[in-house]
Amino acid sequence: MPEPAIVLGANQYGKAEVRVVKVTRDSARHEIEDLNVTSQLRGDFAAAHLAGDNAHVVPTDTQKNTIFAFARDGIGSPEAFLLRLADHFTSSFGWVTGGRWEAEQFAWQRITVGGEPHDHAFVRSGQEVRTAVVVADGTDRHVIAGLKGLTVLKTTRSGFEGYPKDRYTTLPETSDRILATDVAARWRYARPDVDYDAAYASVRSLVLEAFAAKYSAALQATLFDMGRAVLEAHAEIAEIRFSMPNKHHFVVDLAPFGLDNPNEVFYAADRPYGLIEASVEREGVASPAAAWAGIAGFC
Amino acid sequence: MPEPAIVLGANQYGKAEVRVVKVTRDSARHEIEDLNVTSQLRGDFAAAHLAGDNAHVVPTDTQKNTIFAFARDGIGSPEAFLLRLADHFTSSFGWVTGGRWEAEQFAWQRITVGGEPHDHAFVRSGQEVRTAVVVADGTDRHVIAGLKGLTVLKTTRSGFEGYPKDRYTTLPETSDRILATDVAARWRYARPDVDYDAAYASVRSLVLEAFAAKYSAALQATLFDMGRAVLEAHAEIAEIRFSMPNKHHFVVDLAPFGLDNPNEVFYAADRPYGLIEASVEREGVASPAAAWAGIAGFC
Amino acid sequence: MPEPAIVLGANQYGKAEVRVVKVTRDSARHEIEDLNVTSQLRGDFAAAHLAGDNAHVVPTDTQKNTIFAFARDGIGSPEAFLLRLADHFTSSFGWVTGGRWEAEQFAWQRITVGGEPHDHAFVRSGQEVRTAVVVADGTDRHVIAGLKGLTVLKTTRSGFEGYPKDRYTTLPETSDRILATDVAARWRYARPDVDYDAAYASVRSLVLEAFAAKYSAALQATLFDMGRAVLEAHAEIAEIRFSMPNKHHFVVDLAPFGLDNPNEVFYAADRPYGLIEASVEREGVASPAAAWAGIAGFC
Amino acid sequence: MPEPAIVLGANQYGKAEVRVVKVTRDSARHEIEDLNVTSQLRGDFAAAHLAGDNAHVVPTDTQKNTIFAFARDGIGSPEAFLLRLADHFTSSFGWVTGGRWEAEQFAWQRITVGGEPHDHAFVRSGQEVRTAVVVADGTDRHVIAGLKGLTVLKTTRSGFEGYPKDRYTTLPETSDRILATDVAARWRYARPDVDYDAAYASVRSLVLEAFAAKYSAALQATLFDMGRAVLEAHAEIAEIRFSMPNKHHFVVDLAPFGLDNPNEVFYAADRPYGLIEASVEREGVASPAAAWAGIAGFC
Repeated sequence: MPEPAIVLGANQYGKAEVRVVKVTRDSARHEIEDLNVTSQLRGDFAAAHLAGDNAHVVPTDTQKNTIFAFARDGIGSPEAFLLRLADHFTSSFGWVTGGRWEAEQFAWQRITVGGEPHDHAFVRSGQEVRTAVVVADGTDRHVIAGLKGLTVLKTTRSGFEGYPKDRYTTLPETSDRILATDVAARWRYARPDVDYDAAYASVRSLVLEAFAAKYSAALQATLFDMGRAVLEAHAEIAEIRFSMPNKHHFVVDLAPFGLDNPNEVFYAADRPYGLIEASVEREGVASPAAAWAGIAGFC
Repeated sequence: MPEPAIVLGANQYGKAEVRVVKVTRDSARHEIEDLNVTSQLRGDFAAAHLAGDNAHVVPTDTQKNTIFAFARDGIGSPEAFLLRLADHFTSSFGWVTGGRWEAEQFAWQRITVGGEPHDHAFVRSGQEVRTAVVVADGTDRHVIAGLKGLTVLKTTRSGFEGYPKDRYTTLPETSDRILATDVAARWRYARPDVDYDAAYASVRSLVLEAFAAKYSAALQATLFDMGRAVLEAHAEIAEIRFSMPNKHHFVVDLAPFGLDNPNEVFYAADRPYGLIEASVEREGVASPAAAWAGIAGFC
Repeated sequence: MPEPAIVLGANQYGKAEVRVVKVTRDSARHEIEDLNVTSQLRGDFAAAHLAGDNAHVVPTDTQKNTIFAFARDGIGSPEAFLLRLADHFTSSFGWVTGGRWEAEQFAWQRITVGGEPHDHAFVRSGQEVRTAVVVADGTDRHVIAGLKGLTVLKTTRSGFEGYPKDRYTTLPETSDRILATDVAARWRYARPDVDYDAAYASVRSLVLEAFAAKYSAALQATLFDMGRAVLEAHAEIAEIRFSMPNKHHFVVDLAPFGLDNPNEVFYAADRPYGLIEASVEREGVASPAAAWAGIAGFC
Repeated sequence: MPEPAIVLGANQYGKAEVRVVKVTRDSARHEIEDLNVTSQLRGDFAAAHLAGDNAHVVPTDTQKNTIFAFARDGIGSPEAFLLRLADHFTSSFGWVTGGRWEAEQFAWQRITVGGEPHDHAFVRSGQEVRTAVVVADGTDRHVIAGLKGLTVLKTTRSGFEGYPKDRYTTLPETSDRILATDVAARWRYARPDVDYDAAYASVRSLVLEAFAAKYSAALQATLFDMGRAVLEAHAEIAEIRFSMPNKHHFVVDLAPFGLDNPNEVFYAADRPYGLIEASVEREGVASPAAAWAGIAGFC
């Protein structure tokens, strides 16, 4: 029996991390939009791989140029901007049947001068980075919003008890510990007519409130609380995924120095860390694999 | 019609980035193994998420301890070590039906003293990091080897021509440019009885040779050449995936200074960069989605 | 003539990056302090270097333990905490004649739940990191406060004109550009009785306001404006140093696409970047070299 | 008494991190040089800071252009290249009385194809980065070579004993531990006529050999051994400085799992780490402060 032929499988290509900044100067009060955009095309690119024939290879440089040119009209929400790119590339080149567009958005706040927000001077808000992904698969459009790097910590009302013990278990149970994580979340919209900016602000708030509100029996339980709060409040969101490190804060043993330590002095460890990942979904609503392919871990 | 219930979807959890170093001291000539191991369990963890019941939650701390305890017997290839972990966790806890174990391995070379390799002093080899993933899904075992951070560059015998032009195309064609990339590759073994260390060394060499050997009509063509060389030489490898940035080196325009620049002086750009990703496969051999889920991009 | 002997020069050693988190739980409303502390001792350590005699080497592990033990009493301002460490080590070991203690402080904000700041749940403020250095030299104490990573941008009221041209000059003059930088600043207190937290907040505001307020003829001019504003308002500050990248935002040429670009669409570049560093001082007030030794660049 | 005037102190500015790659194509066997260059000018720049007058401000863009233009003639050793830049800027502009030029150099190895080193395909050597600094102060030239990121580890023949104990000491003494560090070193040449490339290779070897060769009573002793070896072999080197983390590898306690651990399984910690810094010098040979100003820590 002959060996099966060696063939090209799934593939995509494009320009990554195009750092586009758009200033809107319609009035003295400027607006700023600051994105990091990646464009990747899918379709019939076999000849480029197999035969060195680039007739289908829309240059990554062209993809970059297109991002800048489209920004001239304003960016708006990152989701809407990526949808514009998706529609453009899939409609402009017959062999481009889909693709993946991704953005990070960085937030800026106005500097306060004399008690007033300044017209054109900004300080970057260093909390979470907003993320967006649009996957085009033929005429399908999957829109996934998200955030990453939202670092939260609660100083009490978190524990970890009742877990199974085996030969390798040394961890003591506790009903009072620090719980800290960097929230990374992505949620998929079930329908197209969404106010993406308003939804983002709401999801962010719900996630923070769910983290703060309840006793945490484990980061798993807190994760699900976050997801449930989002899905209950947002019918337009089909599912939400989280990837969250458990950033360990260990109580330092001060007894050798003649000191007590009633959960007051902690050592914040880097590695290893726990890593909790899960999807919260609506029963019976299928999650399209195409939407999530290529996303690291769960986020 | 009532709203569908909010439920737990796919999930996994564990301990990430356990930095284990094993020294073998059987003789005066020590050996060193240096890994960064992540363990994640899959199975029935719904009660922890939904009800704060941790009876099934094998602590991430226990997973860490197990990694250190297993290293006491020696590590061997990262693939074999991860398989041991997979078998342990899936056989020890009835509700653990699978999981994902991942490792980075860092290479060390002996320091040369007086022309001889030293017995117990090492310098870290800073080239690529070797990677390994084992996915357990019931009794199935998917073994994916890989490497990342293998930075290569060719100063000629690379071009990019014959691509489509549209309104947004400004890139000039060239038949002589620098081609540079950081190779990230992952390959899946089709069968269990593999000499993982020997296969790794061979794949690494084949990838480097394929990069060097031929004229590159585009990074896409070079990628496929690399994959084909690997699959032709290794019947035990079912498929190989690459994710490779096109690290642009732009010819600097020295004409304003009265100088020519026949491809001699380049500016190495950071962002944006091209990003070329593809799988090279054997025709008719299905790629199990479970093996690749959660891997960022194509690698 | 014999060769001069090979001798030990300046030296210091200690424990770096001790990540200490202190929770104050006196009431239901918890407080959190989050620092990264480095302790380095100076003095008579020649025997350790020259003869392998560790009789003077206070272990770096002991320095770490001391940091945690001292945190038990509360941290307070980072400057005050480092001064306590300096006094402890120089008074406890006769051969420790000085040293250098450094801290980064990370800010946390209370999560808002139901419109109210939460008692024990926090979100990390991702803007600037507060820094502090205490240098002890015998009984002298130099206290240097600072910040880094304060990223600011103004969309107009910045230009660069009137500079000298030579054979290698291609830059066009402009009276309207984006000015963006990451402010890193360090300022030295002239006297010990300072409310360090209040001074920090004030300096931060003055720096932001000076960045926003005036037309910037160059980042150099803006730097001096910042420094002058701080020194004018704070008699207790002897000098202030800045290190600021000029983070270039280039206007994208959209003309090839039939579009204008009146300073609306920019490409944010990574490297290279301008780098502007200077000290702003009080005339005739000497800057003690010992205070600044070992600080990278100007900050 | 009036307040002292607020004045400009020390200052420098320029272009940082110019990533220049030079290919020499004189024959089919290409050569590659890969540097990251920073240029900073010192002199009379007061008007720019105080009055917004840029008549003296050689643009950082011009400094960048000059780096690229000078590379057209070949780079050679980084020290020689920086000296060319220093001479150019200080001789071209009367008010530029000095400056600081810095480079990182990245090493590339030829890819082996068919047992032979390839003519134009390279793989980046990931070990240490070579560094160079030239400080010009009037007609003085200080040349400081260096390396960083040279990661070394010895599995035995290292201990730490005989140190002082106090209330905060819990560290047990040991005569057998892992010693690991990332060597960062900088050395100053005492005279101009140096073969910089040959000296670099020799210093690198001497440092590695000194690390390997002797029992280490503490990293301090090993540091001095390294420095002495270099100064003894290189009369042209006036002094050498080291900054080295003590990268802790802790023996994992496997006793709870019924296992012994005779220094075989270690946990490699990230933070905190020891930090050992010192200068090794020739007795009576002064170290010019101007050469070392602005270097972080000791390197």
